[in-house]
Amino acid sequence: MPSEFELIARYFTRATSHTELGIGDDGALVVPTHGQVLVISTDLLVEGTHFLSDTDPEALGWKTLAVNISDMAAMGAQPRWATLAAALPAPTESWIEDFAGGFFECANSYGIDLVGGDTTRGPRTFCVTIIGEVPAGQALRRDGAKAGDSIWVSGKPGLAALGLAHLQGRTRLAEPALSECLAALHRPQPRISLGLALRGIASAAIDVSDGLLADLGHVLEQSGLAARLHIPNLPAAGLERDCLLAGGDDYELLFTAAAGLDSAVMALSARLELPLTRIGEIVVGPPGELVLCDDGGSVITPAIRGYDHFMSPTGREGTVSRDKQ
Amino acid sequence: MPSEFELIARYFTRATSHTELGIGDDGALVVPTHGQVLVISTDLLVEGTHFLSDTDPEALGWKTLAVNISDMAAMGAQPRWATLAAALPAPTESWIEDFAGGFFECANSYGIDLVGGDTTRGPRTFCVTIIGEVPAGQALRRDGAKAGDSIWVSGKPGLAALGLAHLQGRTRLAEPALSECLAALHRPQPRISLGLALRGIASAAIDVSDGLLADLGHVLEQSGLAARLHIPNLPAAGLERDCLLAGGDDYELLFTAAAGLDSAVMALSARLELPLTRIGEIVVGPPGELVLCDDGGSVITPAIRGYDHFMSPTGREGTVSRDKQ
Repeated sequence: MPSEFELIARYFTRATSHTELGIGDDGALVVPTHGQVLVISTDLLVEGTHFLSDTDPEALGWKTLAVNISDMAAMGAQPRWATLAAALPAPTESWIEDFAGGFFECANSYGIDLVGGDTTRGPRTFCVTIIGEVPAGQALRRDGAKAGDSIWVSGKPGLAALGLAHLQGRTRLAEPALSECLAALHRPQPRISLGLALRGIASAAIDVSDGLLADLGHVLEQSGLAARLHIPNLPAAGLERDCLLAGGDDYELLFTAAAGLDSAVMALSARLELPLTRIGEIVVGPPGELVLCDDGGSVITPAIRGYDHFMSPTGREGTVSRDKQ
Repeated sequence: MPSEFELIARYFTRATSHTELGIGDDGALVVPTHGQVLVISTDLLVEGTHFLSDTDPEALGWKTLAVNISDMAAMGAQPRWATLAAALPAPTESWIEDFAGGFFECANSYGIDLVGGDTTRGPRTFCVTIIGEVPAGQALRRDGAKAGDSIWVSGKPGLAALGLAHLQGRTRLAEPALSECLAALHRPQPRISLGLALRGIASAAIDVSDGLLADLGHVLEQSGLAARLHIPNLPAAGLERDCLLAGGDDYELLFTAAAGLDSAVMALSARLELPLTRIGEIVVGPPGELVLCDDGGSVITPAIRGYDHFMSPTGREGTVSRDKQ
């Protein structure tokens, strides 16, 4: 069995592209870009709570970093550097090699340098901290929504939750939907291009990790406003509706923008070749209140709104869900 | 039981002093100081490997942050911001309150803003990522030692390991040594003032977390040199000698400086009211080679040199030791 230092050296030390001093000292040295503000976020993923012990290590490596990149997208930031701390019960080299492969494939796809690491013995746990940059005053925050703003969501929320339901035997998907849902679950594509393009357009943004309604709720609470939602083609009931409204793990962006920018957002959708759907509007009302209508205009009260790791004793296993604070 | 969001809001959200946007969004926003380089480090602490389940939560909160601050000291950096991710098996409010109390006492002592957090259910685990600043070109690295440099260590290495040995019944300490050793173990004081003062003086630096010999070994390997040590009052053998040479968890600074600066280092010791002891010199030789002599000049071969979390299956329980990469 290789030592900790050998493990780090062999699998987690790669050439960096924009880092003065990488892994191997008491700290890494990086030079921030003048005029940019740093955006910092951290996530902890625990086996049994966020992923199952038989999760494919390469997919897990990708997703461990991807969920953090998604936070940068939600802030309108360019991700730049990340650290990875890992606890491993007994380091199996092939498992670590596969995990590192997925992790660095994601890092390379998004231009991120891994600049720090820590490896120790313990129940399998990963903690990534990510640092991005955004020009001063241009970050997309949760507290900027205004009454009258349109509410938008990217992609197709609910796919990851549907894929998980299939894996757990709660539904049975057929191709090509199955492949699409499993890709959304295992290899989410954080919306960095969208986040960067929304600088100066979006009034507020969040990534959909806890579920559409729960994450919109965070925006509403922090902006002190309410919302009325009309989700096109909303399934009338059942698992599909739950996945759409409350399924986490999507890593799409939910954002608000002044109604006068609706056509600019549609143009952005065309340019990025990414569906952007207007799902409602911000209204004055009790902070956090959500009124949800189906296609016919009837008010719907969803059974579940989102996910809290401490309120749900079973966890949502088999997937990487997490919370943001 | 409070929800995750309530826990974060109640115990881990404090006023910040130098942060544009703290906990509560997808990421924190901080403004780096122009002309400074960022120093980034991360550490993962796992129950059973780094601390015991009955460890006093307040002391653990202090130490969880302190060991990261020590990395900033070793780089000559001013610590500025930190994130904390925590897995908790079942959140006991009083435990969390005490842990947060110790954590923020340390944060306030060293002028650090907590800017990000994540809390989830899982085996008790803490991951801190810390970000500091140092003027460009002034960071203290491990690879800068030169042949002929003096080797120095601050404080009294080995106290923490002796305190742990007492708690584990492997030795029996009397007052006042007992209090001194337990303080070193439970409430280490990272040497930030020393690290800042060593800018422009030290040629290389590291903090003593894995043991004096092991950490000196890292400096020697990265500098491509060897060392000859003459440790004053070195115990001839036994536990005390092992603690001095190989006991981790000290968080003192080990550094090298040109021999011509010996008097400058002694003056620094007086100014900081901190013992700085010259323990040997850097010599040309096989990279990493250490020759250790006792008071009489006899060569000593220590039985153990340091600690690796994967090579030692039992872990070093009861203490917060960790590794640096």
